[in-house]
Amino acid sequence: MLDGFFAPASIAVVGVAREPGKVGHFVFRNLLDGGFPGDVWPVNPNAEEILGHTCYRDVTRLPGVPDLAIVAVPAHLVPSVVDQCAGVGITSVIVLSAGFKETGPAGARLERELAQVAAAGGVRVLGPNSLGLVATPSHLNAAFAGSLPRVGGVAFLSQSGALGTAILDESAAGGPGIAYFVSLGNRADVAEHDLLAVWEDDPAVRVAAGYLESVRDGAAFLSAARSFTRKRPLVLLKAGTSDAGARAVSSHTGSLAGSDVAYDSALRDCGALRVHTAEELMDAALAFDLLPIPEGPGVGLLTNAGGLGVLATDEAERRGLSLASLSAETVSALRSCLPDAAAFYNPVDVLGDADPQRYADAIAALLADDGVHSLLVMLTPQAMSRPVETAEAILSAVKGCDVPVVACFAGGDAVEEARALLREGGVACYPSPERAVFAASLIERYRVIRSVGLDVAEKPAADVATAAALLATARASRRPFVIDEVAAMVAECFGIPVPCGSVAADLTEARRIAAECGYPVALKVSSPDILHKSDVGGVVVGLRDEAALDVAYDQLLERIRRRAPGAAVAGVYVQKMAESGRELIVGINRDATFGPLLMVGLGGVYVEVLKDVTFGLCPVSPSGAKDMLSSLTGYALLRGVRGEQPADLDAAADIISRVSWMAVELDDVIELDINPVIVLNRGQGAVAADIRIGIGG
Amino acid sequence: MLDGFFAPASIAVVGVAREPGKVGHFVFRNLLDGGFPGDVWPVNPNAEEILGHTCYRDVTRLPGVPDLAIVAVPAHLVPSVVDQCAGVGITSVIVLSAGFKETGPAGARLERELAQVAAAGGVRVLGPNSLGLVATPSHLNAAFAGSLPRVGGVAFLSQSGALGTAILDESAAGGPGIAYFVSLGNRADVAEHDLLAVWEDDPAVRVAAGYLESVRDGAAFLSAARSFTRKRPLVLLKAGTSDAGARAVSSHTGSLAGSDVAYDSALRDCGALRVHTAEELMDAALAFDLLPIPEGPGVGLLTNAGGLGVLATDEAERRGLSLASLSAETVSALRSCLPDAAAFYNPVDVLGDADPQRYADAIAALLADDGVHSLLVMLTPQAMSRPVETAEAILSAVKGCDVPVVACFAGGDAVEEARALLREGGVACYPSPERAVFAASLIERYRVIRSVGLDVAEKPAADVATAAALLATARASRRPFVIDEVAAMVAECFGIPVPCGSVAADLTEARRIAAECGYPVALKVSSPDILHKSDVGGVVVGLRDEAALDVAYDQLLERIRRRAPGAAVAGVYVQKMAESGRELIVGINRDATFGPLLMVGLGGVYVEVLKDVTFGLCPVSPSGAKDMLSSLTGYALLRGVRGEQPADLDAAADIISRVSWMAVELDDVIELDINPVIVLNRGQGAVAADIRIGIGG
Repeated sequence: MLDGFFAPASIAVVGVAREPGKVGHFVFRNLLDGGFPGDVWPVNPNAEEILGHTCYRDVTRLPGVPDLAIVAVPAHLVPSVVDQCAGVGITSVIVLSAGFKETGPAGARLERELAQVAAAGGVRVLGPNSLGLVATPSHLNAAFAGSLPRVGGVAFLSQSGALGTAILDESAAGGPGIAYFVSLGNRADVAEHDLLAVWEDDPAVRVAAGYLESVRDGAAFLSAARSFTRKRPLVLLKAGTSDAGARAVSSHTGSLAGSDVAYDSALRDCGALRVHTAEELMDAALAFDLLPIPEGPGVGLLTNAGGLGVLATDEAERRGLSLASLSAETVSALRSCLPDAAAFYNPVDVLGDADPQRYADAIAALLADDGVHSLLVMLTPQAMSRPVETAEAILSAVKGCDVPVVACFAGGDAVEEARALLREGGVACYPSPERAVFAASLIERYRVIRSVGLDVAEKPAADVATAAALLATARASRRPFVIDEVAAMVAECFGIPVPCGSVAADLTEARRIAAECGYPVALKVSSPDILHKSDVGGVVVGLRDEAALDVAYDQLLERIRRRAPGAAVAGVYVQKMAESGRELIVGINRDATFGPLLMVGLGGVYVEVLKDVTFGLCPVSPSGAKDMLSSLTGYALLRGVRGEQPADLDAAADIISRVSWMAVELDDVIELDINPVIVLNRGQGAVAADIRIGIGG
Repeated sequence: MLDGFFAPASIAVVGVAREPGKVGHFVFRNLLDGGFPGDVWPVNPNAEEILGHTCYRDVTRLPGVPDLAIVAVPAHLVPSVVDQCAGVGITSVIVLSAGFKETGPAGARLERELAQVAAAGGVRVLGPNSLGLVATPSHLNAAFAGSLPRVGGVAFLSQSGALGTAILDESAAGGPGIAYFVSLGNRADVAEHDLLAVWEDDPAVRVAAGYLESVRDGAAFLSAARSFTRKRPLVLLKAGTSDAGARAVSSHTGSLAGSDVAYDSALRDCGALRVHTAEELMDAALAFDLLPIPEGPGVGLLTNAGGLGVLATDEAERRGLSLASLSAETVSALRSCLPDAAAFYNPVDVLGDADPQRYADAIAALLADDGVHSLLVMLTPQAMSRPVETAEAILSAVKGCDVPVVACFAGGDAVEEARALLREGGVACYPSPERAVFAASLIERYRVIRSVGLDVAEKPAADVATAAALLATARASRRPFVIDEVAAMVAECFGIPVPCGSVAADLTEARRIAAECGYPVALKVSSPDILHKSDVGGVVVGLRDEAALDVAYDQLLERIRRRAPGAAVAGVYVQKMAESGRELIVGINRDATFGPLLMVGLGGVYVEVLKDVTFGLCPVSPSGAKDMLSSLTGYALLRGVRGEQPADLDAAADIISRVSWMAVELDDVIELDINPVIVLNRGQGAVAADIRIGIGG
């Protein structure tokens, strides 16, 4: 769909200045220097010829209709140029010009105009304020980087074009090979999800990697990314984690969550691998560009220095990577090819005087072990080391095997040539053991994502219409929160268990409800005019029998008459007291980008002081909800400590999943807190004891 | 004291083989190639001449007494060679030979013999199994690295010689400059603390950096490191964090603590900066080699790409680094020298088309701001960037100022020359924004360490003699734990408040004690034969008055007669019940390297499930104890949540400090748990309610 951008047959560059310093000129020259095989037509009304190419007055005068136009005219002229492009049938336009949204309200208006013109004319626009695009399969260098990067399988997208130029420069100097590089600019039209949608089936792409400060369209991104990560890895550096604009997730969790929590949840949800530094992004891109995905978790480590082995083992533990237990056959094969002083268990130490053949022999032994699913080979340049020959020996030894091989050749000049050799041979080589382990841990994480699959939540049976109607009525009252008996009814529409109860119009009815639900009960005044019932003495708890009920009922109404004289009283909400059990808090808030965000934590001080909470996108399946629970630090409290029974995790997870669906189905639910969800012992169920629904008022 | 190693006038190399591949030959050649100005005498009984130098039969035949002997003979000959060295007056010996402790029990015996011979002869030995030593001030290359590293201020020590060779190689390729490099080998004699002791006053040393898998002598290390870090920064990569040999800290905390916790506490205690990867170690060494220590916390950020600024800001927050708030004057100065579209607040964005002069102008404006104590300057190579000229402009702009300047020049070949230029000019330049921020955060951490000073605990008044006598008596009973009434007496000797109580020989005395201490009281049978009192019905709690006491007293003794018929009963321990309050657990265990280790946590599930605990070396001052408390996740519980009064932190800290002194003064205390320390509201005190002292039995 975006072929015009990535594989154009011909290109017009609109706004090619005669002066070499200007943007249009620079990109035009890069296009020519990059060896683009098709026609490239410069457009400049004031020049005859630039760099030996005839100039055209405007896009209507071109000798043909180019597949792609690259626009570098002043900002205010851009909409009319795009309109002209549409007029002659050009469907893909890159706008390099700056001066749009990034400059303020006037620029934002101009950008909206540009988007409207483009949409009306059926033109896809990359930019404005883009630093261009590179497509190595098409020999297309329509960016600011001086030379084409090394060719490879990385499709790179960046919201910071300038960071992108650094990446292209690193690529040329032995970094990962590039298939595509796209500077997204202001994203008036083409955004990250468009790119993922076309890249997921492009054979030139082995991995998509990106730098994003935000996602433009949360739903479109999640859909495209979930589809993409089923086929290929997606690595993202989401910057702006310290953004002062982080918003609260709910009244309870405002101090815990910012939008970064939503991004974290979203990236996990769609199977993307989140990295946290520019170096990790490059290291990840290199790994996925070169390496196959392993078939299991076992990592074999090989080193010629104990210190490297220790550092790699430490980092493997930190990254949750498991070292393979070598089989007896492997150990005996290693014994037969290594000196006595060597280490024959993982990590295997071939000793400081190892020559290339010793490396090759040990690698052969490790590759023959079924428990070794990936291999990490390390070397420091010691007196007897021959790094280049060792690199060659490693490449021969791993040739034709489908096990991913990562290397760490530590040092400087002594190992530089060897590193380049390894990378050319398909071994991802890094300068430090920790970076090599990080690379190995990423391919393993992607293996797990692919084999486990993403969480798919099936919608439970729910009476959405009734729930929506209840909320619509509540909204009509123009109060920010739903009164709790209504909130309980809304929850029941989604099959969420709440304490037995309903509103009684008189004492007789109250007695009947209490008898049906069972004692002890609580009484709460039911009035659309009274939101904070306790404040007016409108709540009585712990009534153990009908005699107590009778007394409390009359006293309650008497208090209300006195303390809230104007309130319209619909009756008294009679509710069975919840049993005691372990307590959860389940909350919902809406993220501007990704929609409803679920928060789950242990109640009380665990949330308020220890901030032991976890977040996820809605909806979540019951099994996804269990994963959330198990990620809590205090999870052991749910499983039972000091001889306690385990809590009913199935029932808790079911409630959490249903709450997540409530948020998805009911747009009126702006925020929601269930505090507590009381979880009884295993097999006994769970109940949403106190539900607060915010509808924005 | 170690001048013979670092500044010898003449050197003998014992065991110089004629074959170039052998260790002795290699080091001999490196010595000559490195340009060592003094005499270098090869010793080999079977050769006349090697590399043009006359060989000597043994060290007794040398033309003079060398300051240093380097020994590379087979392991079994090493003790006799060292003995010979001692005989002729050589006082410094490096043993390169392997085949000692690292090979097993026989090698360990040989190593002990070596150590004895050396000690008897007054010889200091580096090694065995060392990969040598480099001292650039002396042009001394007595190691395996092919060439001398770049000269600089880093004194490097490594337990992994092989990792060291990688570091020397990186140094030559633009890494940090080296003053000394020492491969410690097996540390039969010279260890890390010896090196720190001589380096702290060596003007060639700006920073000590090291790779350690263990510390040989905890007390000596702490003392040397505490002294060293007052003068110069010490950066350590402690490897082996995943060591399966991690030991339990106490019965309560066995699952929480391994020896890595002790290392973490020790490195904090002595003001060392702990890093976690080889790359961080190199980056830290570069920073401290080049940069002055800042005079305040404010960091100014300057970039030509918004993306770099965002990434740097994110990392600064993660590293706890504070960005300077620029003064109004600074902002107005920036406005006058930068384009309108630039960002004038921290981070300052000079825009993608910034030329060298614009960098220089912006830097001048930032340096004039009193709130900018260090500067981070970033660049990506964009179309208009001139990296080399920008580097020159930066160096001119910062010339003569005492503000540390860190740089990030992102990219590959386009910025390589500029990076080298910056480093040569004293600007620590890194390839990624996060690594640059890490460097800035380290120099800031060292500034804080230097300005705050290390914790100094003053010994409280204590009756150590009585406490020691009580423990000695208990030890005589050959039981692993002290009974609790004795434990309480030991604690009281150190001024630790315990619940009022003592042992009553009969009911009359019990009544008197209860009356004195006040009700309610608990009764516990006092018998050296009964360790688990509850198991035999030997504990009664909650006695509210004398009538209850009378009944319980007789019943208790009756039960003991029945259920522990052989036990010698000394009486009944009458103890006032502790009031309720917030609960801490305070524990002590002994680390094999660093001695008594203190653990402090909130009681109950906070320790057992949430593992919210903190560790420190003993002794700790009351203010150090408060720092420990404030590092707990649940600290807010002590300060009071939901309108609670704050707990008496002074009293809690006082108890913690006194407990740490108990551990220091009483070697018999193998482990100790006070669970709980009950902390009352502010001003009300705290009490060690239940003390368990393990004496190893």
